[in-house]
Amino acid sequence: MLKQQSLIDFTLHHADNTLILAQRNAEWCGHGPILEQDIAITNISLDLLGQARNFYQYAAQLLNEGETGGDTVTEDTLAYHRTEREFKNCLLVEQPNGDWGQTILRQFLFSTYQYLLYTALQKSNDEQLVAIAAKGLKETTYHRRWSSEWVIRLGDGTEESRERMLHAIEELWMYSGELFMPAEYEISAAEKGFGVDVSSLKNEWMQKVNAVFEEATLPVPEKTFFQKGGKEGKHTEHLGYILTELQYMQKTYPGAEW
Amino acid sequence: MLKQQSLIDFTLHHADNTLILAQRNAEWCGHGPILEQDIAITNISLDLLGQARNFYQYAAQLLNEGETGGDTVTEDTLAYHRTEREFKNCLLVEQPNGDWGQTILRQFLFSTYQYLLYTALQKSNDEQLVAIAAKGLKETTYHRRWSSEWVIRLGDGTEESRERMLHAIEELWMYSGELFMPAEYEISAAEKGFGVDVSSLKNEWMQKVNAVFEEATLPVPEKTFFQKGGKEGKHTEHLGYILTELQYMQKTYPGAEW
Repeated sequence: MLKQQSLIDFTLHHADNTLILAQRNAEWCGHGPILEQDIAITNISLDLLGQARNFYQYAAQLLNEGETGGDTVTEDTLAYHRTEREFKNCLLVEQPNGDWGQTILRQFLFSTYQYLLYTALQKSNDEQLVAIAAKGLKETTYHRRWSSEWVIRLGDGTEESRERMLHAIEELWMYSGELFMPAEYEISAAEKGFGVDVSSLKNEWMQKVNAVFEEATLPVPEKTFFQKGGKEGKHTEHLGYILTELQYMQKTYPGAEW
Repeated sequence: MLKQQSLIDFTLHHADNTLILAQRNAEWCGHGPILEQDIAITNISLDLLGQARNFYQYAAQLLNEGETGGDTVTEDTLAYHRTEREFKNCLLVEQPNGDWGQTILRQFLFSTYQYLLYTALQKSNDEQLVAIAAKGLKETTYHRRWSSEWVIRLGDGTEESRERMLHAIEELWMYSGELFMPAEYEISAAEKGFGVDVSSLKNEWMQKVNAVFEEATLPVPEKTFFQKGGKEGKHTEHLGYILTELQYMQKTYPGAEW
């Protein structure tokens, strides 16, 4: 795979991951069960949206390089004008919010992955990716702590909250494996030194998840069949609905800036 | 009017103003026409929600003082368990988002008022209100600048953006007068030295709005019949829908904390 193509795909993959999770979390905006939580999850959504913008801006820059004529690619065209099949986000981030416990668990599983990813990206040979990851790492460290505390509070909480966490694990665990199954562009990215071999992150991820689940008195599932496909554009039925909402404005008023 | 009652009502009025406008702005969350704007309006929404929490916490403290037995009032019960008739927000903040121009204009008219209000509250004889207003003033200063720039950009922009701003003025201007028509608790609040005589803010508000409208080449409406009633709980048909959405979670799962 050509370096330029895998760099673009790798960057878009992380842009899409953060955009779609931001969008999912934003659905809580104004609907949280408690004012304080509503603010916290919306803040996380904004952090992720900021990370998405950084990745999209970089991808746009790469796509515009050497192009003469034709439409300029921007962060907004990448976010609003691509089709479902072009989105490269992993399946985990597009899964429904469900109840508060499910939203928390999705955040915890993803933030733990993101924490390891951004840490590893500090050694990338691509300066822009190093800078984007460094900024994201601070935010992600907070998201991981916040969601860990919630997993423990709910898992080791009332009978109902525990039941809900068990249900959340049942719903989401099968989408956690894909994080560590590299797509072609991730293999190429790791080989060329700007990306990360995601399969190498799995052990540490498991240790970190284990530690929190243990404190939360929650069981770690054994032997699961992991769903995959998102990274290559094969999505669950949920992404279409998310994009319909997300892209509605731009589809209705193309290029609108008023 | 008893001091304690007018202090509670005055505080709830400002809590409701900020909560409802936060909720309206939050409807843009994930639906903005451009990623950057989506982040900006959501940040403003979070600032307003933070201000609402401060006012509600203070109101809850006042309501719990001297009470023995019975349920404790909290910021969440005040936001989620009161009825439409109990909400004291002004009509302006509950008006629909409309298009981007209408959202911007609503923010501009309200932030300009809030800026003057919070400045005047610095002289309140109630320390808590001084502190809440001081914190809010910094945020509001930014909201006012941001929305002013947008009013100018859209008013003095394309033919379409100008048309849309004229329409926004037509929709919203009639709700701006209520900001300066004091409710009974506001009159009492001003008399007792903890509140502000809102009618005294109108001249400076008009000057500030005039200056921005002039730069935006937008006309200031003359002689309008101003709608009122919100401050006393008589709302337009919109508030009911907002509260249905806002309070859905707590109504469905009362006291849920899982």
